[in-house]
Amino acid sequence: MSRFGDATSVERIAADRFRIDLDAGFGFAQALNGGYLMAVLGRAAVEASAHAHPVSTAASFLRVAKAGPAEILVERRKSGRTTETARATLLQDDEPVVDALITTATLDPAAEPVWVGAPPEPALPPVGSCLSLDEPPKSTSPRKGAGTGVHPRDVGDRGFADRVDMLFDPSTMGWLDGRPSGRLEGRAWFRLRCGYQPDAYALALAVDALPPVALNVDAKGWSPTVELTWHLRAVPAPGWLAVLGSGRLSAGGWFDEEVEIWDSAGRLVAQARQLARTGRA
Amino acid sequence: MSRFGDATSVERIAADRFRIDLDAGFGFAQALNGGYLMAVLGRAAVEASAHAHPVSTAASFLRVAKAGPAEILVERRKSGRTTETARATLLQDDEPVVDALITTATLDPAAEPVWVGAPPEPALPPVGSCLSLDEPPKSTSPRKGAGTGVHPRDVGDRGFADRVDMLFDPSTMGWLDGRPSGRLEGRAWFRLRCGYQPDAYALALAVDALPPVALNVDAKGWSPTVELTWHLRAVPAPGWLAVLGSGRLSAGGWFDEEVEIWDSAGRLVAQARQLARTGRA
Repeated sequence: MSRFGDATSVERIAADRFRIDLDAGFGFAQALNGGYLMAVLGRAAVEASAHAHPVSTAASFLRVAKAGPAEILVERRKSGRTTETARATLLQDDEPVVDALITTATLDPAAEPVWVGAPPEPALPPVGSCLSLDEPPKSTSPRKGAGTGVHPRDVGDRGFADRVDMLFDPSTMGWLDGRPSGRLEGRAWFRLRCGYQPDAYALALAVDALPPVALNVDAKGWSPTVELTWHLRAVPAPGWLAVLGSGRLSAGGWFDEEVEIWDSAGRLVAQARQLARTGRA
Repeated sequence: MSRFGDATSVERIAADRFRIDLDAGFGFAQALNGGYLMAVLGRAAVEASAHAHPVSTAASFLRVAKAGPAEILVERRKSGRTTETARATLLQDDEPVVDALITTATLDPAAEPVWVGAPPEPALPPVGSCLSLDEPPKSTSPRKGAGTGVHPRDVGDRGFADRVDMLFDPSTMGWLDGRPSGRLEGRAWFRLRCGYQPDAYALALAVDALPPVALNVDAKGWSPTVELTWHLRAVPAPGWLAVLGSGRLSAGGWFDEEVEIWDSAGRLVAQARQLARTGRA
């Protein structure tokens, strides 16, 4: 197993109930990452289903999840020939922490797109021109060669940043030193440091892995996600994932964050949108 | 009251339970429109909440809803200072028909965008250059002046088409006579024939009102929605709504449909994405 595999491993304790020990390593300060929680919910939903993939996940983030024991309740709501839909809830101290609606199905890994839109512009620069935050940079100019040929080990206790290897498009990271781009955007290469290869659960993590796109507009500090829906569109290939974040509107203390993920084979593998409150901290 | 107001009017029968008589007029053949059902769920969620607007709605469509009596169960899951989140379920014959996660809040009608992206391209042509389907057309060339100054009355029994006045971008309607555009797209002006002016509930209807965008790629006939999430981004102004539909990928019998709605004041008021099965009928 790998760290991420272990961290999302659920134990079935009843037909509709699972237990998990949530890994503090997938958190920022005291709060666990929402994508990590969606990965855990997806794994439980698939274990409770006749199908192989969590194709659609809509999640409401109700409370901050803490590291340690939690339960997942999976209530089957409809079973069809090609899909099954469930309500999945992450519970801690008998309170709902995340409510999700999850549809499972079995995607054909060989399915070719009938039609696909062009990758969004601007494109993510090559890995070697992107910015690693492994050492807090003095400026956002790229560190040449960052990440090329290197696969930093899954060590350290900085939480999320020690679990994932992300290389950021420098043009979307100006907020780090007071020069936000002025648009809702963020783009990065993504992989798990433990070597876990892309699958539906790694994608669940990746769709919520970017710094909030509103840091490039008016957000200060963290921006709590209210709702995030993501769809698995294809079974991803091994290797780096391109995580392309944007948004349409920041107004009244709310913003949207859209994320598309393209895999190393050049396929659109995941789509997400979240609605979040603009961080003011 | 108006037809749409009546059709979405819910009667509270317990703290967490509402009754409604679903109006056959908002259906296609035997199936009621998913947007109509989301409007009904949103109204119940707001009546059960301290807040004024359904800002985020994620819905799983489990079974076909029929006209006639139904119940709505609203379970409060979290109550915060600025938002409240509930699970709302539409029940018919004691079976769940639609499961939704709804977050309510109170938007400031005067909130100005801090930042907003450009309206999507291509633009929707003016009302007078768009295509009405009130009489089945021989071709998709625009009927000049269709809809201008006319507000056809809410009469007739064709169901949905008699409730809403939609004027379609002819370039997205080629599928009607065997010339699909080859892209996931659909665009139309939208208003309710009964004179009901845009609000959150009319937007819930509008985000699921277009013919499936996959009719322009590979879909034949109706395409069942599996999941639809939409967000209310601003309180809409009176008048026509521009409903701009697109999609990113059709593959393996699944497609996504994105809808943005812009109001008569030029504001982005709603965003939606649905994941649907490609119609084969």
